[in-house]
Amino acid sequence: MAEPLIPMDEDGLDFRRVTAIINAVDARDAARIATLMEPLHAADIADLLEQISAQDRNALLGLWSEGIDGEVLSEIDEAIREDVIAALPRAVITEAMRELDSDDVVDILEDLDGPQQGLILDALEDADRVAVQQALSYPEGSAGRLMQREVVVAPADWTVGETIDFLRISATLPDQFYHVILIDPLMRPKGYVTLGRLLSSRREVLLRDILEDSFRTIEATEPEADVAYTFNQYHLISTPVVDASGRLVGVITIDDAMNVLDEEHEEDMLRLAGVGDDSSLSDGAFATARQRLPWLVVNLFTASLSALVITAFQGTIATLVALAALMPIVASTGGIAGTQSLAVAVRALATRSLTSANARRVVLRELGAGVLNGLGLAIILGVAGYVVFGDLRLGLVLGMAMIVNQVVAALGGVLVPLTMSRLGLDPALASGTFVTTLTDVMGFFAFLGLATLVLI
Amino acid sequence: MAEPLIPMDEDGLDFRRVTAIINAVDARDAARIATLMEPLHAADIADLLEQISAQDRNALLGLWSEGIDGEVLSEIDEAIREDVIAALPRAVITEAMRELDSDDVVDILEDLDGPQQGLILDALEDADRVAVQQALSYPEGSAGRLMQREVVVAPADWTVGETIDFLRISATLPDQFYHVILIDPLMRPKGYVTLGRLLSSRREVLLRDILEDSFRTIEATEPEADVAYTFNQYHLISTPVVDASGRLVGVITIDDAMNVLDEEHEEDMLRLAGVGDDSSLSDGAFATARQRLPWLVVNLFTASLSALVITAFQGTIATLVALAALMPIVASTGGIAGTQSLAVAVRALATRSLTSANARRVVLRELGAGVLNGLGLAIILGVAGYVVFGDLRLGLVLGMAMIVNQVVAALGGVLVPLTMSRLGLDPALASGTFVTTLTDVMGFFAFLGLATLVLI
Repeated sequence: MAEPLIPMDEDGLDFRRVTAIINAVDARDAARIATLMEPLHAADIADLLEQISAQDRNALLGLWSEGIDGEVLSEIDEAIREDVIAALPRAVITEAMRELDSDDVVDILEDLDGPQQGLILDALEDADRVAVQQALSYPEGSAGRLMQREVVVAPADWTVGETIDFLRISATLPDQFYHVILIDPLMRPKGYVTLGRLLSSRREVLLRDILEDSFRTIEATEPEADVAYTFNQYHLISTPVVDASGRLVGVITIDDAMNVLDEEHEEDMLRLAGVGDDSSLSDGAFATARQRLPWLVVNLFTASLSALVITAFQGTIATLVALAALMPIVASTGGIAGTQSLAVAVRALATRSLTSANARRVVLRELGAGVLNGLGLAIILGVAGYVVFGDLRLGLVLGMAMIVNQVVAALGGVLVPLTMSRLGLDPALASGTFVTTLTDVMGFFAFLGLATLVLI
Repeated sequence: MAEPLIPMDEDGLDFRRVTAIINAVDARDAARIATLMEPLHAADIADLLEQISAQDRNALLGLWSEGIDGEVLSEIDEAIREDVIAALPRAVITEAMRELDSDDVVDILEDLDGPQQGLILDALEDADRVAVQQALSYPEGSAGRLMQREVVVAPADWTVGETIDFLRISATLPDQFYHVILIDPLMRPKGYVTLGRLLSSRREVLLRDILEDSFRTIEATEPEADVAYTFNQYHLISTPVVDASGRLVGVITIDDAMNVLDEEHEEDMLRLAGVGDDSSLSDGAFATARQRLPWLVVNLFTASLSALVITAFQGTIATLVALAALMPIVASTGGIAGTQSLAVAVRALATRSLTSANARRVVLRELGAGVLNGLGLAIILGVAGYVVFGDLRLGLVLGMAMIVNQVVAALGGVLVPLTMSRLGLDPALASGTFVTTLTDVMGFFAFLGLATLVLI
């Protein structure tokens, strides 16, 4: 072979393999591409398609599509999924969709536009199509969209032996299942048995005698954030989903819950920074700019509040220009303190550790921490101000403004998200802009106001 | 009963139940406490202990400790675990420790101080103590600390029937297991069979014929962040852990990986905001202030850079004091843009979607978005400056400074974390402070510098 042997990860996606694949695509060497793609897991193939440029991606899919199965389509970022589906032969899509569980098909389908949705629904077998359409009838972001409809159930009066015999002759079991769900004649779940328990019990044991102690069901209309919380809080592996009348309609497994948890984290982190939820690393510069512009414009207006405050003290600044240089120190240190307090509060609200039971104590704690750090920073800054400018009163003003702004920052950082949460809003949404506006305005006001009183 | 009936969540931890429990503790009514605690899941008991004050917690544990089992101790926040253990009778601790799998004992043990560690080790049976001590010999934060040593294995030449018969007579199976791991005579794992597959296959089928396609092992010394990534990326449920010679030493299950993922997220979010990792909502004001002070002091110094820049332009400000009021607008909008770009980059690095393969494209995209938003904001601010101050040149200076700072923000937001990551540092650590210092300094410099050139 002409190409030198490249030492790369045996089956992982490292930079060497990506480079080798792009080179093979440039050379239109389909055999080499197939060799390089073959060891990759579906999740790594999806990552590869996300990381290379749109041009390389289309060229790659034109030369090689046999490895694109349902799992790859299900793993791939929704920002490029439409492009990938558009680039694939119809037979590949049909084959890919038929091997997926209903929850994964729903997950792919809900982000596509009309014509592509039709294409995918057509690819499904009749029973699957009905299952998918029923799932789509639940609201977006609900447990009903997350669940798979393939369930493994048994009547409560069966024995272990009967259950195993039944599983052995079942033609269509889900890809992954972790429990046998016991149901009553009206299809209402009554408990479940873990597969480990089933395997280690004697054939004549009754299922009802080896039920798990803790058993929870989830309503199909419940928001997916609550589902993720329930899985994480109670260490669930899979949970039955019921409709309003308590009948079993599906099962949610932990991998889907882990996925939601991961997305919720991403949302919190990006919202806190003022970035739209639907941003993706595959977006171009225009889409990225459009997503970020709204909060920048909002900040333009809130920052004008600071400008108004400073304008009110123009006379003071004209008398002592050094104040203009010092005022950002008070404002910016307040911004950092507010951000610290805010991040802790948003995280605590997301994990539901900040509740009505301890809100008052946490607010008081933040207040205390704000006073303490305000004092500490006031001493450092006050002494520095005195040493540099030789003016004791300037040092005093710096220190006092710092204390005021640290307290405002600490309180604002926890009260803003708490208030948003009480109002039923996402505490992460825009809190960052509110809190830094607050600390900027208060920082300038306290510093220039005190300076006017004491120095001028 | 004298107390009025309180409508509360049947088995959840709502505010009503917390209040009722605190009232019962105040009244020292042990029977009422027991009734109120009885329906709670271990995770909810742990949350309750975290949310009430230290005083109430100690009083509660004095009146009621029979419900504190191993699961509660394992769920509880490490910040208050020592206090809880100190408040419990020795018999309760012994009983609690004996029911836990080895990974949970290790998790509890590693955060305790010496004497309490000894207490817990003494409580264990000999075999468990050896298992725990072996786990503790792996580095902190490694897969070896995360794994449970209880494993379910079978030789590759066994049939389904032989395996089921073996499981039925096994006295000590782990609480939860999802696979039977096939091993060779040297205890090296060769693949695994899911329990679902085992249950649905005929007795005479050989295990080696129903192995899962994809099979991964994890080295005991691997960092837990990599373990969490592997579980999330490849949708694993449980994975064998091997030592350096490839021998099976334990198993990691998805609930532990989900836990690590959750902690990694928390770490990213808090570090990005300049808060120490070991902060807890149960910390008091002093501990909280101490954790947050370091980055505040760092910011005091970095903010002084801004002050130096402004000082250099004192002459300009003295000539046109309005500049002092306008300069924070340019700086703060740059701060927001830098934070946006930074949050996206840190998240992408954490999920490993930002790699050598696409770093150049992402940086160029950020640059493009920075130029576009800089232009958009420049037009708004420039026009507003012209309208308010009636000075076309002031509008021009505002607009131009905005473009410069938006570009610096966009580039800084992605280049700072990328550089930290290349240097092997956590990209979330202190990036926020670096980036906002950059945008502050550049914002003041560009605005005042251009103003000096154009206006003065």
